[in-house]
Amino acid sequence: MDTSIFKLHHKDCHCKARTGEIQLPHGIVKTPAFMPVGTNATVKGMYHDDVAKIGYNLILANTYHLYLRPGLDVIRSFDGVHGFSNWNHNILTDSGGFQVFSLSHLRKIHEQGVKFQSHIDGSRHIFTPEKVVDIQQILGSDIAMMLDVCSAPGISWKEALNAMDITHLWAERAIVRRDSLKDLTGRAFRGNLFGIVQGGFYEDLRVKSARTISSMDFPGVAIGGLSVGESKEDFVRFLSLTAENITERKPRYVMGIGTPDYLLYAMENGIDLFDCVLQTRTARFGTVFTDDGMLNLTKAFNRFDHGPIQEGCTCRACTEYSRSYLRHLFTADEMFGGMLASEHNLTYMLNFMKRARKAIEEDRFLSFKEDFIKRFYANGGVCKGSEA
Amino acid sequence: MDTSIFKLHHKDCHCKARTGEIQLPHGIVKTPAFMPVGTNATVKGMYHDDVAKIGYNLILANTYHLYLRPGLDVIRSFDGVHGFSNWNHNILTDSGGFQVFSLSHLRKIHEQGVKFQSHIDGSRHIFTPEKVVDIQQILGSDIAMMLDVCSAPGISWKEALNAMDITHLWAERAIVRRDSLKDLTGRAFRGNLFGIVQGGFYEDLRVKSARTISSMDFPGVAIGGLSVGESKEDFVRFLSLTAENITERKPRYVMGIGTPDYLLYAMENGIDLFDCVLQTRTARFGTVFTDDGMLNLTKAFNRFDHGPIQEGCTCRACTEYSRSYLRHLFTADEMFGGMLASEHNLTYMLNFMKRARKAIEEDRFLSFKEDFIKRFYANGGVCKGSEA
Repeated sequence: MDTSIFKLHHKDCHCKARTGEIQLPHGIVKTPAFMPVGTNATVKGMYHDDVAKIGYNLILANTYHLYLRPGLDVIRSFDGVHGFSNWNHNILTDSGGFQVFSLSHLRKIHEQGVKFQSHIDGSRHIFTPEKVVDIQQILGSDIAMMLDVCSAPGISWKEALNAMDITHLWAERAIVRRDSLKDLTGRAFRGNLFGIVQGGFYEDLRVKSARTISSMDFPGVAIGGLSVGESKEDFVRFLSLTAENITERKPRYVMGIGTPDYLLYAMENGIDLFDCVLQTRTARFGTVFTDDGMLNLTKAFNRFDHGPIQEGCTCRACTEYSRSYLRHLFTADEMFGGMLASEHNLTYMLNFMKRARKAIEEDRFLSFKEDFIKRFYANGGVCKGSEA
Repeated sequence: MDTSIFKLHHKDCHCKARTGEIQLPHGIVKTPAFMPVGTNATVKGMYHDDVAKIGYNLILANTYHLYLRPGLDVIRSFDGVHGFSNWNHNILTDSGGFQVFSLSHLRKIHEQGVKFQSHIDGSRHIFTPEKVVDIQQILGSDIAMMLDVCSAPGISWKEALNAMDITHLWAERAIVRRDSLKDLTGRAFRGNLFGIVQGGFYEDLRVKSARTISSMDFPGVAIGGLSVGESKEDFVRFLSLTAENITERKPRYVMGIGTPDYLLYAMENGIDLFDCVLQTRTARFGTVFTDDGMLNLTKAFNRFDHGPIQEGCTCRACTEYSRSYLRHLFTADEMFGGMLASEHNLTYMLNFMKRARKAIEEDRFLSFKEDFIKRFYANGGVCKGSEA
């Protein structure tokens, strides 16, 4: 019996890009898929209904943030994030590890786990591989991530080896915890625990980590430690190397990438799942996606423009409002600007993934990729006039 | 032929409260009516569709703000604020006078008009009674307000007389301008120009101003210079005195009041139209209307509260989310908190006005008023636990 959550639909015959679906507790997700980020159990500036109406049925929420605020006691009282936030589709939660490394103070890593101080109130906490599984059980995550060691870029081979070894050890401990949860709590783990590949920018370690994590009892595999400041060439090289050492039978996830070029490179290498804050964060500052690159709505050249952000876009920002009105909202510092721009960027991204999936199904992903990049980056990735 | 825009439906037999409707270019408005404030041609934190869906078909926009930003050249290119903002219902614009007095720098009042410097960039401008009519013609306002002299509270009888005299002079000039606009521009004035009563807190001046403005060729009359810091007793006394000296055949509007007690006192005295920023401004800080007074969502006592803001409320904040989740959104400084709270407060206010209209139709406005005030102000106007 195939217990895999991933069903392959089609592989492009000219590259490794593939379409498929991930079967999750709150519905099937078509891949490749982009996940909007809802750090605090809310996709910033969006009604949940509208996120779903656009077509998303999987969002990301951050374990670190929800653990600290509102706290697990509150979320447990709602039987998880779904009940708490009234988002009735799928939720992926990260392990919290990345935020511990990037946001908290005085973190200290041991083989046992990570000690850290909250960036909100300085309170002291510890995350262990087991605790992070327990937390995500309480959150009710449809996809949960194991705790990994997020190593800094530029570390030595020996340091990368050490981080990888601890990650692999933590992977085993996470699986043991997941499997014993029913015995410990009387309640089986409901979500799908994904493993995370590390190994820094050393080929031997990447290959080893990919094969090790891939072979473990995880229904999905994420690639960590990429897009941390390395060159685009290194990103593509290590992504490709890592991906080809992960089994085809599991969904593959690259965390935290969201620019069209990186998404296209990753899809070309058979990656299925993505998340990024870029789409909603830039939107709140008035920067929106178009086929011709990023458009800065705040610039004066939009002042008399009665046209939409992007011809043919189906979002409300494009069908009901002009660039001129949107510019006005941003210059007047009105919330509605960020709301409309967020809706546009998430709509644009959903349609971008749809177009990519269609291209894969029709075995023309490579030309789709090239055409898209050629147009989007014709002016360095920004619309004419939007240069900083 | 009755060319009045106001149709009286019913007068409560125990007080002066009345229901009716105002016929405006973008549809009929049932009165008494509350107008959400959309200063910059956007009701803060709300989709236009949702403002209309709640049941509003008349919002207020600020002439001063729109004149300075985006500027009349932009709005003219859209043939008015309706086209610019895609709000396809009625718009009332104020004269800009109040903002000139409260926001701009170095204003100087002459019989000719008001000179002022923009609060945005310090640029110099002048508003005259004629210019303010012209501006609102360009804005395409369904209701336009004449320029008046907003006199400070605590001025002498002589100063109040002077402010009133200039206001009356400006009223005449505004009417002349409105009527000559077709000759001057080839285009008749499309909106309804309302007059404004002044007179400070002197009974003889109030009576005189009310009768003078009321008798002039304005389809509606506003009461200015109230709720500027006077006691509640003075507010009610001068409101009552002013209102009874305005003809019954025209809609009466009191600008800038929004607390339930003031709205109820005003309705009792036959006022038909209101606007206030309170509903959306407090919402953005987490304070929401309930039958038991204002609720501060940010307070810790909401942490485990799975209930809605207000039982029976039909807004999305109440039907889809808990106080606990709303508190979380505010403590995490998430936009969605302000969005949901704004929707709630505007929904609450619409239903409040509906209840008031029903009470008037059934000749029980006074008991409605007393019951409402008794419950709402049982704890000083705030829900238990929400005290500062």
